[in-house]
Amino acid sequence: MSEEPIVAGTATDVSKQRRGKRRGDRDAAPQAPIAGIRRQIPTYDILSEGALVAIEQTADRILAEIGIEFRDDPEALRLWREAGAEVTESLVRFPKGLVQSILRSAPSSFVQHARNPARSVVIGGDTVIFAPAYGSPFVRDLKDGRRYGSIADFENFVKLSYMIPWLHHSGGTVCEPVDVAVNKRHLDMVSAHLRYSDKPLMGAVTAEDRAEDSIEMARLVFGADFVDQNCVILGNINVNSPLVFDATMTNALRAYAGANQACVIVPFILGGAMGPVTIAGAVAQSLAETMVGCALTQLVRPGAPVIFGNFLSSTALRSGAPTFGTPEPAVGSLAIGQLARRLNLPLRCSGAFTASKIADGQAMSESAMSMLAAVQCGANFILHAAGWLEGGLTMGYEKLILDADFCASLHRYLGGIQIDENQLAMSAFEEVGPGKHFFGCAHTLENYRTAFWESEVADNGPFEQWQDGGERDSVDRAGRRAKKLLAEYQAPALDPAIDEALRDFVARKKATITDQWY
Amino acid sequence: MSEEPIVAGTATDVSKQRRGKRRGDRDAAPQAPIAGIRRQIPTYDILSEGALVAIEQTADRILAEIGIEFRDDPEALRLWREAGAEVTESLVRFPKGLVQSILRSAPSSFVQHARNPARSVVIGGDTVIFAPAYGSPFVRDLKDGRRYGSIADFENFVKLSYMIPWLHHSGGTVCEPVDVAVNKRHLDMVSAHLRYSDKPLMGAVTAEDRAEDSIEMARLVFGADFVDQNCVILGNINVNSPLVFDATMTNALRAYAGANQACVIVPFILGGAMGPVTIAGAVAQSLAETMVGCALTQLVRPGAPVIFGNFLSSTALRSGAPTFGTPEPAVGSLAIGQLARRLNLPLRCSGAFTASKIADGQAMSESAMSMLAAVQCGANFILHAAGWLEGGLTMGYEKLILDADFCASLHRYLGGIQIDENQLAMSAFEEVGPGKHFFGCAHTLENYRTAFWESEVADNGPFEQWQDGGERDSVDRAGRRAKKLLAEYQAPALDPAIDEALRDFVARKKATITDQWY
Repeated sequence: MSEEPIVAGTATDVSKQRRGKRRGDRDAAPQAPIAGIRRQIPTYDILSEGALVAIEQTADRILAEIGIEFRDDPEALRLWREAGAEVTESLVRFPKGLVQSILRSAPSSFVQHARNPARSVVIGGDTVIFAPAYGSPFVRDLKDGRRYGSIADFENFVKLSYMIPWLHHSGGTVCEPVDVAVNKRHLDMVSAHLRYSDKPLMGAVTAEDRAEDSIEMARLVFGADFVDQNCVILGNINVNSPLVFDATMTNALRAYAGANQACVIVPFILGGAMGPVTIAGAVAQSLAETMVGCALTQLVRPGAPVIFGNFLSSTALRSGAPTFGTPEPAVGSLAIGQLARRLNLPLRCSGAFTASKIADGQAMSESAMSMLAAVQCGANFILHAAGWLEGGLTMGYEKLILDADFCASLHRYLGGIQIDENQLAMSAFEEVGPGKHFFGCAHTLENYRTAFWESEVADNGPFEQWQDGGERDSVDRAGRRAKKLLAEYQAPALDPAIDEALRDFVARKKATITDQWY
Repeated sequence: MSEEPIVAGTATDVSKQRRGKRRGDRDAAPQAPIAGIRRQIPTYDILSEGALVAIEQTADRILAEIGIEFRDDPEALRLWREAGAEVTESLVRFPKGLVQSILRSAPSSFVQHARNPARSVVIGGDTVIFAPAYGSPFVRDLKDGRRYGSIADFENFVKLSYMIPWLHHSGGTVCEPVDVAVNKRHLDMVSAHLRYSDKPLMGAVTAEDRAEDSIEMARLVFGADFVDQNCVILGNINVNSPLVFDATMTNALRAYAGANQACVIVPFILGGAMGPVTIAGAVAQSLAETMVGCALTQLVRPGAPVIFGNFLSSTALRSGAPTFGTPEPAVGSLAIGQLARRLNLPLRCSGAFTASKIADGQAMSESAMSMLAAVQCGANFILHAAGWLEGGLTMGYEKLILDADFCASLHRYLGGIQIDENQLAMSAFEEVGPGKHFFGCAHTLENYRTAFWESEVADNGPFEQWQDGGERDSVDRAGRRAKKLLAEYQAPALDPAIDEALRDFVARKKATITDQWY
């Protein structure tokens, strides 16, 4: 077990790596390093100053007049009482301005280090990071249909996310490995992320000791001192909306924030169920809840990185069924983006949401609506960017590929329009003139290699070619691509001493735990 | 044949209709009148003032230094010479500022009247009008696959667009009725729009006499005097990009503009083929071409309504295949929107574009990317909003339904977020409090009926229900919906005298024409 940081994200460390024995490993990686996107177009701001203030005032009233409940967590109540909040049994009410003032110590942007420094990401400012979907008990592929996820599926999704350059992050619970005991899953999941990928990752949040184990495993890789000073693992903390934080979540929050690791605070609001049916109200509630969760991280450890999260969707009010990728949460995300920027916090918003059971037209249309809102609102960390089906119940192999292709297109979209002499192309017009074509002109030859984004899954060829090829739809093509990527997968190199330390840690922990299956 | 306007768009006429015998007909219409959307969110402006000026200056240089060719049309050349352009054989060069100064007479907004005044639309300002796809030789449905379009298909698409409240316009060549002689199609097409729908329509542009026949048929319905003073039919004028107007198009342009009917001027640019491979250059070219076409309408008849059109897409440069719904044209549309507003002209942009052969995930993902850009850029008239497949070669029955459902969601999207006491929902938080749900609370009961948009095609129910229902995908559900709508179709009432006049006109015209089949 090594305490030395094997990889670290500073410039010095990067240059050491490049001179060192690991250089060859990185060169053998399946794609050029793309550690996130820098958004080069403005955010899409739809609300006026007056509208934003009205929502902020409603959030303030919710916090001051209704309050937030912290269940079964005396330590959280103590922190709030000391900070100046009004605590009555488990209910906390917040004087106007308190949480905003606490939030000032939170960084507006931070680096999450990956064990391969070329894959470290900046979260905040104008960067955009895509991570796969999170938390599905089921998985689906064309061959075997829908079934419970296994650790083999989990490893497959980690491998696929590693292979796909358009996903910058390995995510967390990419599916539930239902064949592993509930209280041991986190060990196998964090191991898989660290072993099968070298991208940044998320740890467990389902119990305090599991969160601590996750962070301890990160320490084995990055070194304890490095981890104390740098973010290397994220924890996704859901609010039990409306207006409740459960002890499970606040305990996990304290584990991550206390270790200087980043929490993503996520109010989980389906309008009509866990929030009101009006978007302005749901956004105000979301703002109130996430501000409180983010502020709690700062009470635990001022300066700890934290992400302003949001999960907003609607319900079909005749049936009560949750709906995803609908227009109301999309405009809600645009509003949330404006509100997060006013607090100067990194933002997480929506993802490739859909209620569809399969990666059909409904799925991709809903996912596009949701993902475009996420990038347009300025979200920095986009969880569920690929794979999500059936309201999050299912992780789809083909859906992962199709969504990742959409993520690829968003890299180009967020690049916007460059304006310079070459881009304005006056030389092309001079060469070609009226009525001719641009295929062979000098400007085209100079620019065509990088000119247009090309999908890795779309079929753009002639009809007859598509027909002769068996009339495959995009799910079919995506399934073939997933299979091909998995067949070609090669693990990123891992120091054998670290590998051994991780295996040892997992074996020792498992030996002390009695399986729990629910 | 009546010269009286049967329906007209003024308030007085509407009230006459409401008192008159036709009221019952309108009440029997299959949906509440929704004559377009008023966009209540800002446009998405991605370019800076400097970038916009750079593109405008490039367009000015294209017009002054390269010029635009007007082929086989001495009348167009005469108009340009008289207006002060420099004409050399068929090439016209434009002194800086000339076209912009001519464009000042064009209206920034106009009404296109429908024969049912409740369906008249405003084109310009903050309104958004959706029209079905245009010009496909093929049609496709699940049952019979891809085949040449027939007049029966054409009528079906007119009927479907009439039935769907989210399409505000009947469109034009909703598919090519290949079983009708090329030189007689326009008569059957315009008849079908006027008979099977009461929404606004587009006329023929493929020859000057066909354009004139289309306008003449509109006169039979609206009255000649009314048509001379009001827009009742649109003509879609394609530029033969790069930088060429063919006589077929300029002759049709003169027919429409001369009759005070609106032209949509559409540069048709696939980057790398009819334009440069760089977006800034393609946008500059598009701006130059459409300004010239729009200005020509003003030389023909100052004040004639005209729409600043745009059709921008990319090519897969390794294969040369056109691609649709890709990110570059999407950001291109956002730029075009800013440029059109600086000229104060109504705008047409993209549509539900895709290169996919079927309405699968690729199709709906590409269409969503394209349509969201269209509405975000502020486009007023969105042709190809529903049905488009295979780069425009095929009109799909199921695609029409799925796209129309996306159009429905855009109605809600463009409504943005309302801010008032009810929307901010403080009363709901007071009633519900932490940890409870909002399903039955008073605020939900007061608001749920209109709270969330609900798709007419999406499956949001539980997995088991979907499985028991036969695991239908969205294409299957859309096909069933198309069939149901066609079975339920009832024609809007048409004055028998007008019906007779239209039939008589078509019969007389057909009797004088020898069939042409190519």
